Amino acid sequence: MSGSPTARDLPIGVFDSGVGGLTVAAALLRRLPRESIVYLGDTARLPYGTKSPETVARYTRRNLDFLLSRGVKAVVVACNTASALALDRLEPVVPTWGVIESGAATAAAAARQGPVGVLATESTVRSGAYEAAIHRLRDELEVVARSCPLFVPLVEEGWADDPVTEQIARRYLEPLLERGVDTLVLGCTHYPVLAPTLGRIAGDAVRLVDSAEEIARVVERELADLGLERREPVDGARVELCVTDAAERFQRIATELLGDMSGGSPPRLEWVEV
Amino acid sequence: MSGSPTARDLPIGVFDSGVGGLTVAAALLRRLPRESIVYLGDTARLPYGTKSPETVARYTRRNLDFLLSRGVKAVVVACNTASALALDRLEPVVPTWGVIESGAATAAAAARQGPVGVLATESTVRSGAYEAAIHRLRDELEVVARSCPLFVPLVEEGWADDPVTEQIARRYLEPLLERGVDTLVLGCTHYPVLAPTLGRIAGDAVRLVDSAEEIARVVERELADLGLERREPVDGARVELCVTDAAERFQRIATELLGDMSGGSPPRLEWVEV
Repeated sequence: MSGSPTARDLPIGVFDSGVGGLTVAAALLRRLPRESIVYLGDTARLPYGTKSPETVARYTRRNLDFLLSRGVKAVVVACNTASALALDRLEPVVPTWGVIESGAATAAAAARQGPVGVLATESTVRSGAYEAAIHRLRDELEVVARSCPLFVPLVEEGWADDPVTEQIARRYLEPLLERGVDTLVLGCTHYPVLAPTLGRIAGDAVRLVDSAEEIARVVERELADLGLERREPVDGARVELCVTDAAERFQRIATELLGDMSGGSPPRLEWVEV
Repeated sequence: MSGSPTARDLPIGVFDSGVGGLTVAAALLRRLPRESIVYLGDTARLPYGTKSPETVARYTRRNLDFLLSRGVKAVVVACNTASALALDRLEPVVPTWGVIESGAATAAAAARQGPVGVLATESTVRSGAYEAAIHRLRDELEVVARSCPLFVPLVEEGWADDPVTEQIARRYLEPLLERGVDTLVLGCTHYPVLAPTLGRIAGDAVRLVDSAEEIARVVERELADLGLERREPVDGARVELCVTDAAERFQRIATELLGDMSGGSPPRLEWVEV
């Protein structure tokens, strides 16, 4: 399909277990002003971060099939857990990128002598995906990963900037800071919301790495390489939002994050079964 | 099927979204020493507490079908959210009980002049199921419900008895205590683990209500009324544990909770697709 005018004009598919991947969608919309997006939030099965590789791979495959059925030209797996656990089990029929490689690349470039700290879900930490990806780039860097199971519910509770969250974050970060990390990967799409709190605790000397901007850069470059970049502006809405479970919160956050980029009106939410 | 020797000897089915319902299974095994149980934890789709009525009803229907396929004589829906959102949408072919009615009955009996406080998941609170059930018994009682989205992840993190959890619980309970509640329903199977913390905050004058013991009493009475109570001891394991996603934590907690009641050896975990 590469290079044909039709393929160029198709949307990019993006999925996450829930709302977090909208930060990636927003970064894509900002960097690629002519592209449109079909976003799928698998809200009926979230969270992925505590589930097994087999189950996450099964859900990821279904999500990918759904996006393909909507006619996307490429897919961004915006969920760190799905990227870590499922990406190498797939045989995608369109170009497909996860968020681990780009986060790891930014961390490997940002780190001085390390160690690099990785904050992620239980399943992502257990997979060792960030360590492996960072070591492929700089094998001398020490990597210290830590799962932070309370971060997602704290963000969803709206307590991102709260003394309780600061206390919990301090407890999660302490062992990493004691090891002297100079770089901290926010290895879950929810965590960038906590960046101000995490930055306050870690201090100015520690660089926080969020993969949303980096993956947008990668997608821009590779779409161009493949001759798949859209050349004409989209006529109408730039984002189609699908969820597997109805969530008022999803609509609200999507409107906040994407409202001004989605072509005027607030993005419409479609409830799909996947 | 009522009364036939074959039906009497069948196991009781119990399901929850995860590990929480094991407290109900344990109460059943203690109170009904001749009965056996098939337990299903829908760990691939948990938590239910943030999902919509339609989705929870769909999952509940599948879980019920699975238990029926294992030949159970009756079903206990040990998940408060599924009991609140899905029970009245089902047309069960065997006797089926949820945990809302029994929790509400205990609360209505325990409350002095009220108000009764209900701690539960977002979806259970939104359903109004506890209020309705309590008002059917004592319509003058004021009921104040509050969702506590961080309780489940705090319990799963193993922080049940922790200063952070106490702070969060204090914040959730404050508005209820200001209203002068004299009874507190623990309206989620995870919450009894937090009873010591909640009791410390609420004080001795507030009665905590946990539906596990009460539902076991109801099942004992109604199985006898239906002529479905088992009369001979079970030969072999008393518990069959099924999960939809493999979870080490599940095995560990199940062994702690049920080990000594499941017929000697630790209960074996079977991974099923539902």
